[in-house]
Amino acid sequence: MGKIAVCPGSFDPVTFGHLDIIQRGSNVFEQIYVVVLNNQAKESLFDVEERVSLLKQVTSTMPNVTVESHQGLLIEYAKQKNAQVILRGLRAVSDFEYEMKIGSINKMMAEHIETFFMMTSSEYSFLSSSIVKEIAKYDAPVDQLVPAVVASALHKKYASK
Amino acid sequence: MGKIAVCPGSFDPVTFGHLDIIQRGSNVFEQIYVVVLNNQAKESLFDVEERVSLLKQVTSTMPNVTVESHQGLLIEYAKQKNAQVILRGLRAVSDFEYEMKIGSINKMMAEHIETFFMMTSSEYSFLSSSIVKEIAKYDAPVDQLVPAVVASALHKKYASK
Amino acid sequence: MGKIAVCPGSFDPVTFGHLDIIQRGSNVFEQIYVVVLNNQAKESLFDVEERVSLLKQVTSTMPNVTVESHQGLLIEYAKQKNAQVILRGLRAVSDFEYEMKIGSINKMMAEHIETFFMMTSSEYSFLSSSIVKEIAKYDAPVDQLVPAVVASALHKKYASK
Amino acid sequence: MGKIAVCPGSFDPVTFGHLDIIQRGSNVFEQIYVVVLNNQAKESLFDVEERVSLLKQVTSTMPNVTVESHQGLLIEYAKQKNAQVILRGLRAVSDFEYEMKIGSINKMMAEHIETFFMMTSSEYSFLSSSIVKEIAKYDAPVDQLVPAVVASALHKKYASK
Amino acid sequence: MGKIAVCPGSFDPVTFGHLDIIQRGSNVFEQIYVVVLNNQAKESLFDVEERVSLLKQVTSTMPNVTVESHQGLLIEYAKQKNAQVILRGLRAVSDFEYEMKIGSINKMMAEHIETFFMMTSSEYSFLSSSIVKEIAKYDAPVDQLVPAVVASALHKKYASK
Amino acid sequence: MGKIAVCPGSFDPVTFGHLDIIQRGSNVFEQIYVVVLNNQAKESLFDVEERVSLLKQVTSTMPNVTVESHQGLLIEYAKQKNAQVILRGLRAVSDFEYEMKIGSINKMMAEHIETFFMMTSSEYSFLSSSIVKEIAKYDAPVDQLVPAVVASALHKKYASK
Repeated sequence: MGKIAVCPGSFDPVTFGHLDIIQRGSNVFEQIYVVVLNNQAKESLFDVEERVSLLKQVTSTMPNVTVESHQGLLIEYAKQKNAQVILRGLRAVSDFEYEMKIGSINKMMAEHIETFFMMTSSEYSFLSSSIVKEIAKYDAPVDQLVPAVVASALHKKYASK
Repeated sequence: MGKIAVCPGSFDPVTFGHLDIIQRGSNVFEQIYVVVLNNQAKESLFDVEERVSLLKQVTSTMPNVTVESHQGLLIEYAKQKNAQVILRGLRAVSDFEYEMKIGSINKMMAEHIETFFMMTSSEYSFLSSSIVKEIAKYDAPVDQLVPAVVASALHKKYASK
Repeated sequence: MGKIAVCPGSFDPVTFGHLDIIQRGSNVFEQIYVVVLNNQAKESLFDVEERVSLLKQVTSTMPNVTVESHQGLLIEYAKQKNAQVILRGLRAVSDFEYEMKIGSINKMMAEHIETFFMMTSSEYSFLSSSIVKEIAKYDAPVDQLVPAVVASALHKKYASK
Repeated sequence: MGKIAVCPGSFDPVTFGHLDIIQRGSNVFEQIYVVVLNNQAKESLFDVEERVSLLKQVTSTMPNVTVESHQGLLIEYAKQKNAQVILRGLRAVSDFEYEMKIGSINKMMAEHIETFFMMTSSEYSFLSSSIVKEIAKYDAPVDQLVPAVVASALHKKYASK
Repeated sequence: MGKIAVCPGSFDPVTFGHLDIIQRGSNVFEQIYVVVLNNQAKESLFDVEERVSLLKQVTSTMPNVTVESHQGLLIEYAKQKNAQVILRGLRAVSDFEYEMKIGSINKMMAEHIETFFMMTSSEYSFLSSSIVKEIAKYDAPVDQLVPAVVASALHKKYASK
Repeated sequence: MGKIAVCPGSFDPVTFGHLDIIQRGSNVFEQIYVVVLNNQAKESLFDVEERVSLLKQVTSTMPNVTVESHQGLLIEYAKQKNAQVILRGLRAVSDFEYEMKIGSINKMMAEHIETFFMMTSSEYSFLSSSIVKEIAKYDAPVDQLVPAVVASALHKKYASK
């Protein structure tokens, strides 16, 4: 029987790096729940509804991918979905150490849920939502970094500031 | 439908760290092929047959785990087994960089096979076959590091040297 | 003659990881001054007095451990206490680089005071005050991460928010 | 024909570590533009004009070094100056990963401009503007870390707070 | 006036990753000496003459690139060539630390010669001569990793074993 | 009461980096046992007796430093000496990970013996016995890297090859 995976993140906004992980993960798991976590500590450019909406648009062709948001601990969300797996992308050593911490805590809170990591494809290994925003802020093109609908949303967001 | 994973290594010899990954992986995948790769560049303590035999003994209670050996590229083995996933344990930053290299190459050679990483449980994060051998060589106890059958095999091996 | 060590930190709040270092350090040094540094740049959950009070409660059984706070440079505090050693815990590579910087500066400001590092026990290698707060915020249990008195203080703090 | 390099940073304020890179770079490139980037996200101690002024004073003996500020993307500035090279100092692993990201993005936006890295001399490998400010804030001496004119500016800045 | 750079390595054999650095470096420096260092400690697949020959063939279209070999310390070679710069590629954190060591020693031995680092393009960040040999050994295709003439040389080398 | 520390290594040969750690450690501990471990896996330039002899000469002015060799596990040696502490120098991230492994194992084998780490002074952070040998092999000066008696021993050793 296939397995259910949860793929968490801030997705502020979703990039080609995130999509790469979601797409490849969707080939392995029966169902993937992409979940926007509402981290109040970090100020976001897009609100949770906007981030969910962009994610839904760019994953609309993937039948086994569902996008939702969650306020609270990831592990509670994973339990609600009966997920066996938390799926995360790894780009660099700094990611790795952060993920080890989070993974250990999640393991402690729910021993039967495993965290699986995939390496982001090397062409996206430098890519992050922060860098996309830094570039879009100065009205430079981001078409190689995010889907067209996200590029357009970024453009509107900064034009209105 | 469940997925098939390949879990490669030198396993010279298998430790509790390896077993941790195999066990946890076996809860997620329908079938796991643990494969002893015969890396001629590294001198080994146990020959391939001995390593396979020890692995078979310590995984005998896991019905969906098969142990084999392979001479050649891992990716060829994964294709033969119709595996969708290569499963690897990560302990430290140095592992991470090595794995990124290998994972990128394997991705290049077979785009539809994904490498998934699991973090080794923190109590085994320091553990490696090399360290076990270093300790066993001086006849110090390794019971907390390897299954009893492996501890015994190590003892015999060094006693006969 | 025994040596005097200073063990600095934010301790917002103290975790089992901190206690592990303090306890093990107290077996080696004649006297340990645990000092809460008041870093104004970081917003804290507990004020300095609360952090000192929690530390005093959880180290009350260690006769050679004294808890204090200090406003200013650590090295000035270490000089006041005639300490020969600054004692720090190391968990990960990111800690390591940060500590190298701080250690080099402290060495430059007081050449006769040495910084000694201990590795946090592997079961606490993922643990930080930030992660404890992130979990407690959502009312999830933190009993495996902090002493009971700290868990209780966290509960009250978030309940009153 | 000699090459033009751009040497970007926050320089809040310039340290002996920065000067080390600028000086050594000025021996290799025909012209170096040191450019203060105005990162609005980070709160600065010195405003852009003050940072430019301090840099001009401490590089006044280097005939092929020009100091300017820029609001916007570095890569646009580099194009305006017809620079072939972006010159950056590397101190530690954390620098390295950050720089890889930025370098990859800059390469994507202007393929003909190369980023070159120099290792900061080991005696300055621990040095950063943040650490200098942390020390100066408590009125401790910073003469080994920054030029006299910067030490004096730091003193005045904190005295007036 | 343009500058002279030395680009050292084992080049056993040259890969697209090496070529990437040489090509991009040749756009910045007036003259680049690519030098095969004869490291007796590492057993090589190709002898020095073969490595020089392959490098000459794959850099034949770059007029300001010269290929030579050197037995002895790199810094002596750099002095002979009146080079101001040693040019090195960086792929990963492990490279970075190794390069810091070598760069510091070279700086100590010849203060006026600077080491400059370029990040290997992300599509080659996983690539090394060792990995190419590992693949070629099992007769798997390496066309995406090395120039055709090198692929052919690898094929012949392993066929004759 | 003062504490006893063991300072282990290959010391093939001792460098200014090792001496820096031994000297600074000797100010904190009542007695330091510097112990040459005979790692048969690594081929050494100097035999154990030569390494002990060089260490004795360069530490002769430190009254609380004793030099010995040991064949077997470090932890057995530390127990024999009633040491409470194993003292190690840290230079870089790669050191750090290796030391974490060894420290965890030693902790497991003798819980009451603590490993303490000191950061090597930044001017020696790039220094290793291997690099010294690499330089001395080509008859280049190593006076800034090792004591005179070691430089002389290196010279003789390579002259006789």
